[in-house]
Amino acid sequence: MEEPPIGDVFGEMIRDAFAVRTGVGPRPLAGGRVPRPVIEVIERDDGLINGAPADHYLDEPGEWEEQDHRALRLCRGHVLDIGVGAGRIAVELQRRGMAVTGLDTSAGAIAVARERGLRDTVLNTVDAYASASARYDTFLLLGNNLGLLENAERALVFLAALARLANPGARIIAQGTDPYGTTDPVHVGYHQRNRERGRLGGQLRLRLRYRRLATAWFDYLNCSVAELDAVLAGTRWRLTAIDEADRPYYLAVMELRE
Amino acid sequence: MEEPPIGDVFGEMIRDAFAVRTGVGPRPLAGGRVPRPVIEVIERDDGLINGAPADHYLDEPGEWEEQDHRALRLCRGHVLDIGVGAGRIAVELQRRGMAVTGLDTSAGAIAVARERGLRDTVLNTVDAYASASARYDTFLLLGNNLGLLENAERALVFLAALARLANPGARIIAQGTDPYGTTDPVHVGYHQRNRERGRLGGQLRLRLRYRRLATAWFDYLNCSVAELDAVLAGTRWRLTAIDEADRPYYLAVMELRE
Repeated sequence: MEEPPIGDVFGEMIRDAFAVRTGVGPRPLAGGRVPRPVIEVIERDDGLINGAPADHYLDEPGEWEEQDHRALRLCRGHVLDIGVGAGRIAVELQRRGMAVTGLDTSAGAIAVARERGLRDTVLNTVDAYASASARYDTFLLLGNNLGLLENAERALVFLAALARLANPGARIIAQGTDPYGTTDPVHVGYHQRNRERGRLGGQLRLRLRYRRLATAWFDYLNCSVAELDAVLAGTRWRLTAIDEADRPYYLAVMELRE
Repeated sequence: MEEPPIGDVFGEMIRDAFAVRTGVGPRPLAGGRVPRPVIEVIERDDGLINGAPADHYLDEPGEWEEQDHRALRLCRGHVLDIGVGAGRIAVELQRRGMAVTGLDTSAGAIAVARERGLRDTVLNTVDAYASASARYDTFLLLGNNLGLLENAERALVFLAALARLANPGARIIAQGTDPYGTTDPVHVGYHQRNRERGRLGGQLRLRLRYRRLATAWFDYLNCSVAELDAVLAGTRWRLTAIDEADRPYYLAVMELRE
């Protein structure tokens, strides 16, 4: 097989999912005529492949999981939505009159978020943006975006960047997934091999693919609350609340240490 | 990435899709708790990847496309359903009191078809089965199974095997897809490169993946009706009817030459 070129996988996918949902613009067809569902393909480095319909990235508030609504009630002040994607959360915060900025590394996702009405967007990494003068009161990592911590080492850098962007008293509200509730040998074995290599069990090595494009391989962290707490020990953030009502998913609230 | 091992991709996927639909038996979960949709992942040799929900393989007659119902009205005598999969079509033929045998190379698919009530099944290739003494009046290649002709050379062997399994007056009823209605440069370019290599434009080179497994790479033929007619010239079969009401999909009826 030709190795797929690296590109804006997420952006291309979101653009197509948006076209399918709105019925406007070119979208993937079978045989030039029959609409195809837009599916996000995720490869793991052990050869595991999963597909998931991408439409949920565009869900309106009435379609959300309850956990997202609970997360929004925790927001205050100026919000930076990290990995804003198609703006699912940020557009709703803006509608409620809150100050919200959407940050993403995907130009395609930012374009869709703007088309959906999001006014304040930043196309950048958290690291690079941390040298900007903007300051925030709430950092949102919903849609399992706690995974963007990548791994224990990278988490320190990421969280230091957020600390630089933080007003006093700022908080991070993040959705994570505890991966250890499974008995599936494919996953249990993967976690075990990860630990043998000095990685966290749920430190997934992934790439996304959509149509002809792939991302580079990246770490994506699914961790338990205890593992998250251990990661935070080396940072300016401390865990102040956990909402575990929707296990294996959880909402973590982290606040800037005085 | 670890190269995924070769295995019964289709069977594993169908087994999971069946478990999801019936709510019985183990099925893929996120975090050991949240059901995952069962998605068929198809890779093409140019790096294109597509996902499609697998549930349609289990559709009941009320959920079918009209074309499938029209195809069933063309069946007569003893039917061999080739690539029977989960038995979607064959179980319905059996329910209507027809003699029907389901053939597949996937042990997992055959197991699901039997669990859904299909009594007469064959786990084999068409080629190997052609040395059996069974004879049929109708060969069914629905669900786009005309693609199983693979390519022009392989089609001759495949169609000769069906001729050996045929009673006098037998017919093949096949659903195919004309791939040339697209203007998508990804597909138009692929068709062009195929032709430059002496392949038919829609002679796709594919493999399936599901969770940790992959198939070997295989040819899968999407051809126009004119191309199908040209392929048949070297065989004992002739095209006697085409139903193009659902383009780009078509139903082709081929009858054994006297």
